[in-house]
Amino acid sequence: MSMRISELSAASGVSLPTLKFYLREGILQSGDAVARNQATYGERHLRRLRLVRALTEVGNLSLKEVKAVLDAADDPSLPIHELLGTVQYALEPSTPADIDAGAVDTVDAAIDALGWRVSDKAPARRSIAHAVEVLRSFGWTVEPADLVRYAKAVDRLAAREVAISDDTADREQLVGRMVVGSVVFEAILTAFRRLAQEHHSATRG
Amino acid sequence: MSMRISELSAASGVSLPTLKFYLREGILQSGDAVARNQATYGERHLRRLRLVRALTEVGNLSLKEVKAVLDAADDPSLPIHELLGTVQYALEPSTPADIDAGAVDTVDAAIDALGWRVSDKAPARRSIAHAVEVLRSFGWTVEPADLVRYAKAVDRLAAREVAISDDTADREQLVGRMVVGSVVFEAILTAFRRLAQEHHSATRG
Repeated sequence: MSMRISELSAASGVSLPTLKFYLREGILQSGDAVARNQATYGERHLRRLRLVRALTEVGNLSLKEVKAVLDAADDPSLPIHELLGTVQYALEPSTPADIDAGAVDTVDAAIDALGWRVSDKAPARRSIAHAVEVLRSFGWTVEPADLVRYAKAVDRLAAREVAISDDTADREQLVGRMVVGSVVFEAILTAFRRLAQEHHSATRG
Repeated sequence: MSMRISELSAASGVSLPTLKFYLREGILQSGDAVARNQATYGERHLRRLRLVRALTEVGNLSLKEVKAVLDAADDPSLPIHELLGTVQYALEPSTPADIDAGAVDTVDAAIDALGWRVSDKAPARRSIAHAVEVLRSFGWTVEPADLVRYAKAVDRLAAREVAISDDTADREQLVGRMVVGSVVFEAILTAFRRLAQEHHSATRG
């Protein structure tokens, strides 16, 4: 399959100005040059655009976040088993530089209680500590056991998600599944949490 | 407590231009006019700014989303038990108008199997259906039972979150806790999912 950019636009449903923007930003790979000012695009460009749509529409990622994820996916020096971590780190929201030490301790205590092997530098630790700090400032009590409850709720799901990635041999396919799986299953989890809250609100009368 | 806008800026850590922007956009309530071109601000403005920071920094909400949440919180005609739903609906990411009917059926089947009381119009249904559609386009198999697994993982947590809100009598305090709780506990849940994936990746070798 070989398409001009206008044909790529029609096939992907992505407008021409957006395609040009993606090319400029390095989100879409360059086409194969066939003449001065003309290039052709193929199946891999369509796949890339499908991935970008999944990340922005379902994952609600900004284009800056999409770029960070794709840069990790495109780096051939990155071993497959490190890719998931790199993608996750790229997705983690930024946290303020100064987080209350008590909140950090609470998170450390929860992770110790779980016995999980996670890096001291995992940005998700700081995300949780910041969340604990904010909850406390609004008068919530948050103990390590409360956090452990959240961790256990997702433990088995995460184990399954990681195992599924093993089935896929081809790197490009694996990257796509991993990135989409990570972002999209998160969307499913949080949407079900909202439905569960609606259900429990309704049944309380 | 009565402060001028410069003092409100110092007390909240929010810059003066940002405060003025928030006032213009209706995110921060107007102060009490004391003279032409002068107004004073108090405790409720500080509380509002703390809520806005929690929503943007921890919840990663856009200012447009913050505005939608605050509009629901500020509407006195809205019964308390409908507030959570309204906040949730405001937070739900938008989905494309056309979602594959097979994906919608899969979600309906999962919710029927759970026996949950949720509105046919709950936007989270469409979020999940869109996620299913995207996963299938990347070659994942998604059955209702797979979705039920995600739903069950968050069921008890959601029941607890809803019950905690009952303890609080004062409407303004309740709104703050509900909104922050909804957004911040979601951040905790998704961050733990990332840590769990890291842990399971590490222990697989």
